Amino acid sequence: MRYEFSARAHTLLSSPLLSIRTKTRRGTLISLAEELPAEELFPLSLLAETASTVISADAGALQYGDPEGYGPLREWLTGDWLKAKGVAVAEGGVLLTTGSQQAIDLLSRVYIDPGDRVLVENPTSPGILQALRMQGAVIIPVQGDRDGLLPEHLRTQIRQHRPKMLFATPSFTNPSGILWSLARRKEVLELCTGHNVLIVEDDSYGDLHFQRYGQHPSVKYPSLYALENVSEGGHVLYIGSFSKTVAPALRTGWAAGSRELIGMMAAAKQMADWQSSSLNQRLLHHLLDVTSFDLREHIALLNREYNTRLKLMAELLKRPAWKSSTYSLPEGGMFLWVSLPTGLDAMALLKASLAKGVAFLPGPLCCVSGGGNRIRLNFSHPGRDELLLGMNLMSEAVTEFTARS
Amino acid sequence: MRYEFSARAHTLLSSPLLSIRTKTRRGTLISLAEELPAEELFPLSLLAETASTVISADAGALQYGDPEGYGPLREWLTGDWLKAKGVAVAEGGVLLTTGSQQAIDLLSRVYIDPGDRVLVENPTSPGILQALRMQGAVIIPVQGDRDGLLPEHLRTQIRQHRPKMLFATPSFTNPSGILWSLARRKEVLELCTGHNVLIVEDDSYGDLHFQRYGQHPSVKYPSLYALENVSEGGHVLYIGSFSKTVAPALRTGWAAGSRELIGMMAAAKQMADWQSSSLNQRLLHHLLDVTSFDLREHIALLNREYNTRLKLMAELLKRPAWKSSTYSLPEGGMFLWVSLPTGLDAMALLKASLAKGVAFLPGPLCCVSGGGNRIRLNFSHPGRDELLLGMNLMSEAVTEFTARS
Repeated sequence: MRYEFSARAHTLLSSPLLSIRTKTRRGTLISLAEELPAEELFPLSLLAETASTVISADAGALQYGDPEGYGPLREWLTGDWLKAKGVAVAEGGVLLTTGSQQAIDLLSRVYIDPGDRVLVENPTSPGILQALRMQGAVIIPVQGDRDGLLPEHLRTQIRQHRPKMLFATPSFTNPSGILWSLARRKEVLELCTGHNVLIVEDDSYGDLHFQRYGQHPSVKYPSLYALENVSEGGHVLYIGSFSKTVAPALRTGWAAGSRELIGMMAAAKQMADWQSSSLNQRLLHHLLDVTSFDLREHIALLNREYNTRLKLMAELLKRPAWKSSTYSLPEGGMFLWVSLPTGLDAMALLKASLAKGVAFLPGPLCCVSGGGNRIRLNFSHPGRDELLLGMNLMSEAVTEFTARS
Repeated sequence: MRYEFSARAHTLLSSPLLSIRTKTRRGTLISLAEELPAEELFPLSLLAETASTVISADAGALQYGDPEGYGPLREWLTGDWLKAKGVAVAEGGVLLTTGSQQAIDLLSRVYIDPGDRVLVENPTSPGILQALRMQGAVIIPVQGDRDGLLPEHLRTQIRQHRPKMLFATPSFTNPSGILWSLARRKEVLELCTGHNVLIVEDDSYGDLHFQRYGQHPSVKYPSLYALENVSEGGHVLYIGSFSKTVAPALRTGWAAGSRELIGMMAAAKQMADWQSSSLNQRLLHHLLDVTSFDLREHIALLNREYNTRLKLMAELLKRPAWKSSTYSLPEGGMFLWVSLPTGLDAMALLKASLAKGVAFLPGPLCCVSGGGNRIRLNFSHPGRDELLLGMNLMSEAVTEFTARS
C-alpha cells in the first residue's frame, strides 16, 4: 500500500545523521562522529555483581514500576548528589527518562504547539533540533561567544519573537564545548525570568569538567537552575543523565523542576512508553548506594582520561593539514568544534573522510542554518591508537581535498 | 512562572488512570486494575545468571547500541519465533521498542496528523486511546461482538469517515478478551486492504491462549499480518512484546512490518530517546538463545496458572453480589470484562471499592464514549489469596452499593 505519513514525519529523515550512525555501528569506520563514552572505563565487574544481586533478591526488579521511575534512585539523585550542586528539588519534582533525549522530547510534546517560537544556542545538539522540528516549533537561533549566549542578542530575539522557551547547555554546549561564564548565566536567567521564557537546561556534560576535578565545578559555574534556586514555579527545567558518567545502556536520564511541569511530563511518559526500565534504575541505585562504586571518583577518572585524549587530539591538529583550521580548546565535555578554512566544505569533507574510513559530525547538523565550514570531533570514545589512526586518515582527507581545490 | 502547556497536553491529565496507578503502586491497595504479569513466575535465577554473564563478557553491553535494537535479538525474533506464527519479516523490517506502548506511540507520531480519522475497537486499551488523543486523531469506534469487529459496521465507518488506520487486537482484545474468529479476521483484512487502511495489530496477548497450549494457537487464529502474508508494502504493522511472556522491566516490545514504515519509526525512535536499553535486549537474547530457558514451555506454565486464576475469579463472580452482572469467559489474555447491572455506575463503584482497599479499571477509560456500566478485572497478577480477598472486598462494595440504590 502507499503509506501516508504525517506531515512532520519527513523532518526525521532529512538528516544524514542516521546513515553515519548505521555505518559506524557496523564497525567498518573509526567514529569521531558520535557522543560515546569510553567503554573500557565502564564499571563492568561491579555492575555484573550488582545485576546478579538485584535480580536474585526481588522479583519486583522485573515487574512494571512507576512511570516516574524507581523511587530510591529518585531519592538518591535529589539527595546529596544534586544538593551538592545547589540543585534543590521538591518531592515529586523529578522524572526518570530514557536518557536525556527523552526528557527533551517529552517536554517538547507537552509544551510546544506548532508555530511556537523556541530559542536555541546556535550551534546546538542535533537531538534538540530534531525534537523541536518534529514538534513543529519555529526555531530561533541566539548568537553566542566563548562566554555563552550574548545577552544583547537574546534580548533582541525575545522582544522580536516572544518565544516560549530557551534550550541551553551552559556547561559544555554540544557541539561547541562552551562553558558559560557566571556573569552570562546570571544575565540569561534574568532575561528569561523577566519575559516568562521557560529555560530547558541540559546539564548532561557538566560533570565532565577536566580542569577542576579537585574542586566541585558547580561552585564556580552553578547551573541556571541552582542560580534561580526555586523548586516550585521556577523558570528552569533541569535535565541530566547517567549515560555519560556511568553507562549509556542503562538509558537513565532525568528531568527535575516544578511539580507542575514534571507531573505533565510523567503523564506524557506514561502515554509514550509507560515507563523506562525499572530494572536498570534499580541496578544504578544499587551500584551508587550499596556497592563500593564512588561516582565522584569515577568521574575524576573519566576526566583525567578524556583530558589526555583531548590533548592528544589537539596535538594532532597541529599538523600541516590543519594549519588554516581553528578551534578553542574546551575545558570539558566530549567534543572539539573545529572551523575549517574557506573552501573546505564540511559535507564534502565528510564524503572524502568516509571513503578513508573515518567519520565525524558535519556542522550543519548542529546549526539552525549554516555551519557548513564546521565539524565536530569526538575525543572521548576512541582509544589513543584509534584516535591517532582516525586523525591520520582525516588529515589525509583534508590534505587531498585542499590540494584539489 | 505560569506554564503554558501545549493544547493537547491536557488530554493526558483528564484520565483517572494516573491516580489509580499511583495508589496501587504504593501497596496500600489490592489491584485488579492493572495489566501486570505474575511476578512469582519470572525466570529470576536464570536472568540473574544471564545478567552477570552478559555484563562481564563484553563492555559493549553497557555502550550505546542501534536505534533499531540489538541485532541478534531482532534476528532471534524474526527467525523461528515469528516464522512459527506465520509472520514473515524482511531484513530491516523490525524495530525494538520500550514495550508495545512505545510502538503504538511512535507509529501514531509518524502516521497521524491532527484531524486524521482512526478506527478503534470499542472498547479498546486506554494506552491506544491516550496516544491517539495526544496526536490529535479523530477516534472512530467500530462495533464488534464475541467474534470480533462487525464487518458491516466497519464498512460503513470506512465509507463514511475515510480513515487512515485501524488499531486492532484480534487475539484477546484489551479489555474485552475477545478472540476474533478466522472468518472475521479475513473479512476485516479484506476491507482494510481494499480501502487503503493501515492496520496496527497489537498481538501482545496472543500467546496467552489458555485452552490450546498443546497446539500452536496461531494455526487456528493467525494474525492479520500472517493472513496478508506480505513482508513489503503490506497493510499490517505487527506489534508485540516480551513484557507479558518474560518480564516487563526489560521493557522490550517490537513493531514488525514494511521497511518503509519501520524505517520511519526508527527515525522517530532516535528522536524520541535514541534507543531502548541494549543491555536489556542483550539479556533477553542471552536468556532466549543461550540458557536453558524455553519460551514456549514458559508460556505454557503461565497459561496453566492464569487459567486457574481466571477460573477462581469466575467462581467468585457466582456470589450473590454479582447476580445481575454478566461477562463472557475469555479463552486467554489477562482480563475479565464485566457488565454491571443498570444503576451500578463503574466510577461510583470504583470510589466505593477504593475505600475498601481494592482497585479495578472502570470501563469509560477503555471506551471512545460510554462504558459506564463496565469494569475490567485483572486476574493474572493477584495470587490466589489476594484474588480471593480482593474479590471479597469488591463483593462487599457491590452489595452495599446495591443496597443503597
